Amino acid sequence: MSKTKPSSRAKRPSSEAKRSSPAASFLILAAGLGKRMKSPLPKVLHEICGEPMLVALLRSLAGARADAEIGVIVGHGREKVEAAVRAAVAANPALGKLRIAFLVQSEQKGTGHAVREAMATEWGRERVESGAPVVVLPGDTPLVPSALVEAVSAPLEKKAALRLLTCTLAEPKGYGRIVRAGGKGTGAVLRIVEEKDASPKERAIREVGVSVYAFDSAFLAASLPKLTTKNAQGEYYLTDLVGMAAKAKKKIATLGWANAEDLRGVNDLWELSQVERTLQLRIVEAHARAGVRFLDPYSVAIEAGVAIGEGVKIHRGVVLRGSTAIGHGVDIGSNTVLRSVKVGDLVEFKAGCYAENSIVEDGAKVGPYAHLRPESHVGRQAKIGNFVELKKATIGEQTSIAHLSYVGDAKIGARVNIGCGFITCNFDGRVKNGVRKHVTVIGDDCFIGSDVQMVAPVEIGKGAYVASGSTITKNVEADALAIARARQENKAGYASRLRQMSEKE
Amino acid sequence: MSKTKPSSRAKRPSSEAKRSSPAASFLILAAGLGKRMKSPLPKVLHEICGEPMLVALLRSLAGARADAEIGVIVGHGREKVEAAVRAAVAANPALGKLRIAFLVQSEQKGTGHAVREAMATEWGRERVESGAPVVVLPGDTPLVPSALVEAVSAPLEKKAALRLLTCTLAEPKGYGRIVRAGGKGTGAVLRIVEEKDASPKERAIREVGVSVYAFDSAFLAASLPKLTTKNAQGEYYLTDLVGMAAKAKKKIATLGWANAEDLRGVNDLWELSQVERTLQLRIVEAHARAGVRFLDPYSVAIEAGVAIGEGVKIHRGVVLRGSTAIGHGVDIGSNTVLRSVKVGDLVEFKAGCYAENSIVEDGAKVGPYAHLRPESHVGRQAKIGNFVELKKATIGEQTSIAHLSYVGDAKIGARVNIGCGFITCNFDGRVKNGVRKHVTVIGDDCFIGSDVQMVAPVEIGKGAYVASGSTITKNVEADALAIARARQENKAGYASRLRQMSEKE
Amino acid sequence: MSKTKPSSRAKRPSSEAKRSSPAASFLILAAGLGKRMKSPLPKVLHEICGEPMLVALLRSLAGARADAEIGVIVGHGREKVEAAVRAAVAANPALGKLRIAFLVQSEQKGTGHAVREAMATEWGRERVESGAPVVVLPGDTPLVPSALVEAVSAPLEKKAALRLLTCTLAEPKGYGRIVRAGGKGTGAVLRIVEEKDASPKERAIREVGVSVYAFDSAFLAASLPKLTTKNAQGEYYLTDLVGMAAKAKKKIATLGWANAEDLRGVNDLWELSQVERTLQLRIVEAHARAGVRFLDPYSVAIEAGVAIGEGVKIHRGVVLRGSTAIGHGVDIGSNTVLRSVKVGDLVEFKAGCYAENSIVEDGAKVGPYAHLRPESHVGRQAKIGNFVELKKATIGEQTSIAHLSYVGDAKIGARVNIGCGFITCNFDGRVKNGVRKHVTVIGDDCFIGSDVQMVAPVEIGKGAYVASGSTITKNVEADALAIARARQENKAGYASRLRQMSEKE
Repeated sequence: MSKTKPSSRAKRPSSEAKRSSPAASFLILAAGLGKRMKSPLPKVLHEICGEPMLVALLRSLAGARADAEIGVIVGHGREKVEAAVRAAVAANPALGKLRIAFLVQSEQKGTGHAVREAMATEWGRERVESGAPVVVLPGDTPLVPSALVEAVSAPLEKKAALRLLTCTLAEPKGYGRIVRAGGKGTGAVLRIVEEKDASPKERAIREVGVSVYAFDSAFLAASLPKLTTKNAQGEYYLTDLVGMAAKAKKKIATLGWANAEDLRGVNDLWELSQVERTLQLRIVEAHARAGVRFLDPYSVAIEAGVAIGEGVKIHRGVVLRGSTAIGHGVDIGSNTVLRSVKVGDLVEFKAGCYAENSIVEDGAKVGPYAHLRPESHVGRQAKIGNFVELKKATIGEQTSIAHLSYVGDAKIGARVNIGCGFITCNFDGRVKNGVRKHVTVIGDDCFIGSDVQMVAPVEIGKGAYVASGSTITKNVEADALAIARARQENKAGYASRLRQMSEKE
Repeated sequence: MSKTKPSSRAKRPSSEAKRSSPAASFLILAAGLGKRMKSPLPKVLHEICGEPMLVALLRSLAGARADAEIGVIVGHGREKVEAAVRAAVAANPALGKLRIAFLVQSEQKGTGHAVREAMATEWGRERVESGAPVVVLPGDTPLVPSALVEAVSAPLEKKAALRLLTCTLAEPKGYGRIVRAGGKGTGAVLRIVEEKDASPKERAIREVGVSVYAFDSAFLAASLPKLTTKNAQGEYYLTDLVGMAAKAKKKIATLGWANAEDLRGVNDLWELSQVERTLQLRIVEAHARAGVRFLDPYSVAIEAGVAIGEGVKIHRGVVLRGSTAIGHGVDIGSNTVLRSVKVGDLVEFKAGCYAENSIVEDGAKVGPYAHLRPESHVGRQAKIGNFVELKKATIGEQTSIAHLSYVGDAKIGARVNIGCGFITCNFDGRVKNGVRKHVTVIGDDCFIGSDVQMVAPVEIGKGAYVASGSTITKNVEADALAIARARQENKAGYASRLRQMSEKE
Repeated sequence: MSKTKPSSRAKRPSSEAKRSSPAASFLILAAGLGKRMKSPLPKVLHEICGEPMLVALLRSLAGARADAEIGVIVGHGREKVEAAVRAAVAANPALGKLRIAFLVQSEQKGTGHAVREAMATEWGRERVESGAPVVVLPGDTPLVPSALVEAVSAPLEKKAALRLLTCTLAEPKGYGRIVRAGGKGTGAVLRIVEEKDASPKERAIREVGVSVYAFDSAFLAASLPKLTTKNAQGEYYLTDLVGMAAKAKKKIATLGWANAEDLRGVNDLWELSQVERTLQLRIVEAHARAGVRFLDPYSVAIEAGVAIGEGVKIHRGVVLRGSTAIGHGVDIGSNTVLRSVKVGDLVEFKAGCYAENSIVEDGAKVGPYAHLRPESHVGRQAKIGNFVELKKATIGEQTSIAHLSYVGDAKIGARVNIGCGFITCNFDGRVKNGVRKHVTVIGDDCFIGSDVQMVAPVEIGKGAYVASGSTITKNVEADALAIARARQENKAGYASRLRQMSEKE
């Protein structure tokens, strides 16, 4: 993984100090629409590796402090944002202990305004009373690692009004530059100057601010009301607090962060895809180092919530989504897509399988080009072959459905051999009280020939045989042979005559 | 997008000057075979993101000046080159106003020879008479952006014999170096020295020539006849005009271009793929910034002529070719390939669909692994499911063909439900006067069971039912039920006996 | 391709010297388990582009000297390593002349210990007697090119105890630094200092050792017994020989290698995938420069043993494995996977084909989504269409199997037209003496309708017709028409009545 340790970490407080100083709280700026996203979805809800950016950030906070006190400042689409956070917390045990409050920013008047409204709430007043620092984070920087959260939320240096996170960039263009006394990059911070207001000399400064701060809560509460909108955009800027602190001769601590990529923000769908690529490679690298073999790590999509066992081989173009969990020694062929599929040990998927909300037991072989629709359950050592579709189907151990078949609303026993072109006719065209599909049941050890259709509801007893080419409409008792086809007739010379007719036409 | 603005742009003439000075003409060097391409195709016809390199360059010229006067110097495979350009102009309204002349280079004797022959034509003489500058561009640099074309074709500086495009490279190896008076990189240009003729000191020069020039037409006409073949290759070099101008104490203007990638040339199929990748990412980035969500922008292929609406989600590995046009809110599953397909709003393609020259209406659901062959038309909210092949087939609104079927030469009405394993038997083996396929027509609201074959020509009336397992050879009237299958017979105990026989064998 | 020439190549001996000095031998360190690989497989057997890392290295040695004398030091999983090398040598003519000895390292006590045990064998004593240098290479650096092998194994400089391969890195972190007299990077080598033992000044050195050495065999034999385990890891380090040579005032030659990537080692599955990516791009670049068109060179997987003709077009996501050999002018659609498939000229695969151990003759068209299982043989200009599966099937010239069919254990003649939904029923459920599948034979010029099943063993004579919807259980004579289906019955008004019943329910 990329370096996630701070280049100059704030001096760690002794454990004594730790116990005495209350833990920092967090404020996440999540009220913006993100106009350049060109989407009605609130910006922080755009997904990255399968979860909203805001949830990725919460996961990072939880990694640093499981029971962190968090104020999420909402505005645009606040109901959606709140619902998404609640759903994520409910689904992710790792997020379960976070103490999350939603704080409403009524109008969009800038970052300073957002924090001012947040601190004016009951939640804000409690923060000030507690005396703990308040860490402010943008909601659209989902690559922030837990180590950064930990470092920036450490107890503040004595008498410091705030701690400022900075990065040193080869190309600082576009960022606010950190102006320090003495001009050597080591003196006290005087202010942050925006690119457009910077002198040529200031533009040469490569240390920049990255919109992450830890504030002394008393300083924060006292200073926010003094912010003004006297600037080009006519907005209240949180950044202005840095200058205020400097003017008031307060101490401004800084925390330099080596890996600027961790702070990348998202303003449009291109930037989202860039940030997602970084996160995707981090996820893949972590799996690889833990013993997963990727034939092309740059071609796959593995979402954050996916678990993969050791000795698994993942071919190019594989997509694993949702709560997919893969056992040991599994081989996943190229371009196979699994969404919330539970896969046992030693399973083999050949190329191009597509499965959702299903279970595949140990040693099963699936594909190529098998389609497992939701609620499919493939038994141990069963075989599901090419161009086979399952839907709400339970397939017993060692059963084989090897070719071009549709098995829906069915329960197939163990050791059954199903030929090619098998079809469960589960819908008879008559719908009542919503959808109505009928069930097909086939007992253990049956042998079903090719091109067999079963018009459900129908049940085939254990050990029965069904002849190829039969349309089965009635139950078949155990050990019986069912047959439903016409006799073959050969008409000698008939083909030649047809050809002659063709030629005459 | 990458930076396409010149680092030091030629001073813009006042609009007065612009009006008085005639617009520059363009000469494109497109006569070479490109031996290292290892292909019989003329070099400039090799495709990049779906169109010949030469056409990509013409598109860029048209972006700068819609009615540009262009001489395309052709030689190797000239008929093919001319035909390809004419086809592109006919198909692309954006190229429609270009004034293109084809000028033949009879033999391949170098770039200087090519331009000399071109300027000796009627077209060339008219250029000289007009007094406008002549911009020379290689035909194998398809990444040249319109902004570069605009900058290099601006009216020439007073008394300048030519304007030379240069780039400053970290690794100038292989390029001709720009030797300037005073040696500081700011003096007058003295000459361009080729790598192999350069002194160690000259090799350290990082400013290089990139084979793009704007010539004063009078200087050009006067100087071309003076070119010689006294060099290692025995060819006439256009580059030598720079030295001639310097010797004659003429002014040589330069235009530095920041983004050297814009000038990348193509000499073999590896370089072609590299240049194509750059163009591909530019296309994808532009779509992303305009509101298209790419789950992996590095995995897709989106040709230049494709249009995509807002709110579209494109999964990994998707390929969109030709004149494909996608509506709003469409979801395109991984590895789906669409070639010249018109897609309405809110359509969903699941993984692995493959469609050509077809239409898919609003709200339809297609795939996974559906194959739409040419002239398929999928109606609003229709469903085409897995392992289904359409060919010359019109599918009505809300009709469902969900599993393993082949529907060719067919017209299916609205709200029809077609079971699994449906087959139109459109070919009877007798071909006369070329191919002969018969048509299947199914009326609205029919219900067709599974494993049904329709031996065309055949027509099913509105509201009819066809039982599963039937081979339909005769028309079915409206509201009738058609059935063509044998009765099921169950032979008790027969399966056990078969097994016993097996065991004995 | 990347630069593979040494930046400062050892002065070449005159051909006189060459003849008189015996050729160097090679020792490959291949005894480690590679704990961080998290796999029971010995480290050097992990595959890269389709072959074990160790075999890739042997290929590189063979490229430098076809009959190189090689000692492979084995330990962990030695039987597996020896078997894999023997198999590779048997399968690869290019490796056939290598003289390979396996030397066992009984315990894992470090690189010095490995070489000491190797040199103590009969093989080692012969090396010393021959007087030729001994080149030591790690077994986990599969990107080492033949040019490097050639350069490092050149006769040693006069009186040199060893030649040391070094690289100069922008970020030398983690590597042993080369400490030279005078501190200017040009003086005599004094020693290699490990990162953790280096002074701040030494850490600034950017020239590093890369674990490749050529030793004077007498020096090697004399010095190995002097190695000790007095270091942090308690292991015998080969590197310590450098310091020994320096202390003994022996000459230490160096060979600087410009492309550090060539020396990248593999310690876990992430690093393996990174190294593989580099090798993969080298393979693809070489094919591209030789005339193969890749639509996306970064998306494909082409194994080392694959051959591809000129004029071949390879779409994105294609995977070519094993001994696959592709003729001229072939078009391979996106995501097609071929494993050990022999493909003639002008064949077209559409998207998503999957083929193994099969043959496809000139001009055939396959796919999209066709599956050729082992022992399939597709004749000239035959067509295998979508969702068709072949297995042990021979398909004659110009024969068409265009849609949704399974053809297994079959021999189909020329010019046969097979409709949609054709199935060979090759398994009757009764297995005796292992698997038993029956064969289907179809003569030339037959026409087989849609939805036809052939219950094997069965034979269809030349020119016969089989009607759609027939289950064929008996042979059909030449030119006859076979039919086996029920008559169609239309029941007027029946569908309306069914609907009314539905509505009442």
